[in-house]
Amino acid sequence: MFLIRPRILLSEFLGTMFLLIGVIGSGIMAERLSPSDVGLQLLQNAAATTGVLIAIISIFGTISADFNPAVTVTAWLLGHRQKNEVIPVIVFQVIGGCAGTVLANIMFDLDWFQLAEKTRSGANLWLAEVIATLGLLLIVFSLLKTKRSNHIPYVVGAYIGGAYYFTSSTSFANPAVSVARMLSDTFAGIEPSSAPMFILMQIVGLGLAVLVIRFLFPKSQTNSG
Amino acid sequence: MFLIRPRILLSEFLGTMFLLIGVIGSGIMAERLSPSDVGLQLLQNAAATTGVLIAIISIFGTISADFNPAVTVTAWLLGHRQKNEVIPVIVFQVIGGCAGTVLANIMFDLDWFQLAEKTRSGANLWLAEVIATLGLLLIVFSLLKTKRSNHIPYVVGAYIGGAYYFTSSTSFANPAVSVARMLSDTFAGIEPSSAPMFILMQIVGLGLAVLVIRFLFPKSQTNSG
Amino acid sequence: MFLIRPRILLSEFLGTMFLLIGVIGSGIMAERLSPSDVGLQLLQNAAATTGVLIAIISIFGTISADFNPAVTVTAWLLGHRQKNEVIPVIVFQVIGGCAGTVLANIMFDLDWFQLAEKTRSGANLWLAEVIATLGLLLIVFSLLKTKRSNHIPYVVGAYIGGAYYFTSSTSFANPAVSVARMLSDTFAGIEPSSAPMFILMQIVGLGLAVLVIRFLFPKSQTNSG
Amino acid sequence: MFLIRPRILLSEFLGTMFLLIGVIGSGIMAERLSPSDVGLQLLQNAAATTGVLIAIISIFGTISADFNPAVTVTAWLLGHRQKNEVIPVIVFQVIGGCAGTVLANIMFDLDWFQLAEKTRSGANLWLAEVIATLGLLLIVFSLLKTKRSNHIPYVVGAYIGGAYYFTSSTSFANPAVSVARMLSDTFAGIEPSSAPMFILMQIVGLGLAVLVIRFLFPKSQTNSG
Repeated sequence: MFLIRPRILLSEFLGTMFLLIGVIGSGIMAERLSPSDVGLQLLQNAAATTGVLIAIISIFGTISADFNPAVTVTAWLLGHRQKNEVIPVIVFQVIGGCAGTVLANIMFDLDWFQLAEKTRSGANLWLAEVIATLGLLLIVFSLLKTKRSNHIPYVVGAYIGGAYYFTSSTSFANPAVSVARMLSDTFAGIEPSSAPMFILMQIVGLGLAVLVIRFLFPKSQTNSG
Repeated sequence: MFLIRPRILLSEFLGTMFLLIGVIGSGIMAERLSPSDVGLQLLQNAAATTGVLIAIISIFGTISADFNPAVTVTAWLLGHRQKNEVIPVIVFQVIGGCAGTVLANIMFDLDWFQLAEKTRSGANLWLAEVIATLGLLLIVFSLLKTKRSNHIPYVVGAYIGGAYYFTSSTSFANPAVSVARMLSDTFAGIEPSSAPMFILMQIVGLGLAVLVIRFLFPKSQTNSG
Repeated sequence: MFLIRPRILLSEFLGTMFLLIGVIGSGIMAERLSPSDVGLQLLQNAAATTGVLIAIISIFGTISADFNPAVTVTAWLLGHRQKNEVIPVIVFQVIGGCAGTVLANIMFDLDWFQLAEKTRSGANLWLAEVIATLGLLLIVFSLLKTKRSNHIPYVVGAYIGGAYYFTSSTSFANPAVSVARMLSDTFAGIEPSSAPMFILMQIVGLGLAVLVIRFLFPKSQTNSG
Repeated sequence: MFLIRPRILLSEFLGTMFLLIGVIGSGIMAERLSPSDVGLQLLQNAAATTGVLIAIISIFGTISADFNPAVTVTAWLLGHRQKNEVIPVIVFQVIGGCAGTVLANIMFDLDWFQLAEKTRSGANLWLAEVIATLGLLLIVFSLLKTKRSNHIPYVVGAYIGGAYYFTSSTSFANPAVSVARMLSDTFAGIEPSSAPMFILMQIVGLGLAVLVIRFLFPKSQTNSG
């Protein structure tokens, strides 16, 4: 454990860093290249996010590939993650995510440090975050509990790419991402004052997910598929 | 069976709920963000539907993942589903689908309850529904009968995403979805008076599919692939 | 063999039928919905074709899923298909393809029978058909010869979706498709006088592919991946 | 070894040739068909590149499928490739890539030989190439070292498709591709004077990747997924 810990932390740092590079960077690129159609911007942003999610979950999946405090906490509550790992893993996710946002800013020749001014607020967006997080956690833990974890990269990627569209909040579904997206005043940014409610709603989604997963997958099963 | 039943019903409810959130929600988002090109709207709607289908069939696939009365009835006719499950499963699909539509309406700040006014009618659309349903059922049951059920999420997702385009009806191919899509007067809506013929044609496609599947897969086979 | 033959022929018929429904139908839909940008039309056409290819190769893959005379002839030359099957299989591919085109015409409320007037000619397009066919056959037979046939649906789908763009001919790469696409005067159509050279070039690509495959895969190998 | 060498070299030649046909060809097609929106051009270019990557890595994966000197050198440094193969393999990658570019030029009826005039320079683009190459190499070798090489085609394809967007350089991430893309003055071209710094930065990314991979995957592991 002592020996394996640094690999876990580096994986969470690098993976979340790449995730934010993907989300923020592709948002900037799309905004610049397709100024006349916001839907086309979101399509490019969603497709690129799907791509980076497939990559990072595949790369780090055999070590540690949560990149999301909601996943880490759920993993702990459901017995897939040791309690003493939870805080350090989350810390590295947040640091990695912020590093990724800053790298995206740099890559696209923007001010390194900035605060987003895009307001994302309202009861309907909060509901969207509950639903988005519930769906994401159902994917991760249904696949984990039925020994199909090799499918997680593709299913999470496909889901988030879709959820950018079918939730009105464009599916943050991730507290570390919600924090890191405050640091770029671009397409994917979120005003700091909007983030806390997003995170709170993600926690509500987490609670709901734990209940549903415990009911649907009472104990680990093998799957023949 | 008595013990497993609630898990089946909850799976069908939640899965169909997420399916309709995906279909209706992404339709609204696309319509709002890309007002000037309907093809671009449909592209976003199709991509998001592919994403949510991959997600829900993966999540619930080891429990119960029909989300479609046509699939459930075909499963019963072909010996993959017990007769006494058929009605309750369909009831939960319809309720789940309607719940999903209402949640999509709420998430996008629309009236919670509405009736679509989009007419979808004509012999050519009805033919399209026969073809769309035939293709969908061929996928599900050819994979099931050749022990490749772990591919169903991806193949169904890819097929429906394509069929939004290559059938003139944009491939409802699902009676529960046809009912639930009456409840949102948005991009993916269907006028209540148009739905019955769609459902009838889906049943015709079902009949055709059962004949073809029985002929092509006379008994369950193992596959070396 | 006598017992299995009708299943093979029905599979080839239905699969090629769905392939042409996919190619022609999505072309019509895209042309109608995105009249102002041909690139956007081709993107929708390519995405839908990818979807239908994944579907049909998955559905019929354990029975017979060539849907392409170039694949069938190559399979025979490389010892994967019996000689006496070649002609009947090709006949059913062509009939199925034409049926698919007519069904697409009907679904989109066009004249059932029509001849395309879109000229597709020139040495550069002919080169494109050689390259497109070579690539397609390399996929099918490299995967077959290394026991990875369960990947064929996805790889062929991804390749053709891409090849719509990276070959100047938009990659017909299939004699049965080349014939069937003469029968719809829409986005995906080809003028009858343009088709023979396309088919000839596909045969050249086939010859090249057989040479390369024989060199690269001298005998069937098992793969550890 | 003596017997297998020509198959390796032909694989690297043909694969890199198809890669460049994919990158250059789809760039030309997209530029021509969607003249009014550069984002839409890049979307088509990225999707087609994803498709061709899935194809070529699948086709040649059991023989030799680097198509990238950065991958080949990393493979040698990490003990997956014999030293005496490195130079010949790279030579065939570069020749194959240039052949692919010329074929794309021919297919789209352009001057066979040309030099790109598109300047791609600046510290922010160079940073992007470091990140892009790091990510690519992490994918290839994390999957290789955990016995999941059958996933490489899909993950690399998805990653590069996304990285076209989330890196400001549109992710060349490949010295052979950087050279070959000098030979077409079209959408995907790069001015010869811009290429050396791109290649240098790819080498920096390679160095970083070797360090990270050695730390994360200290020895080959088996994976249960």
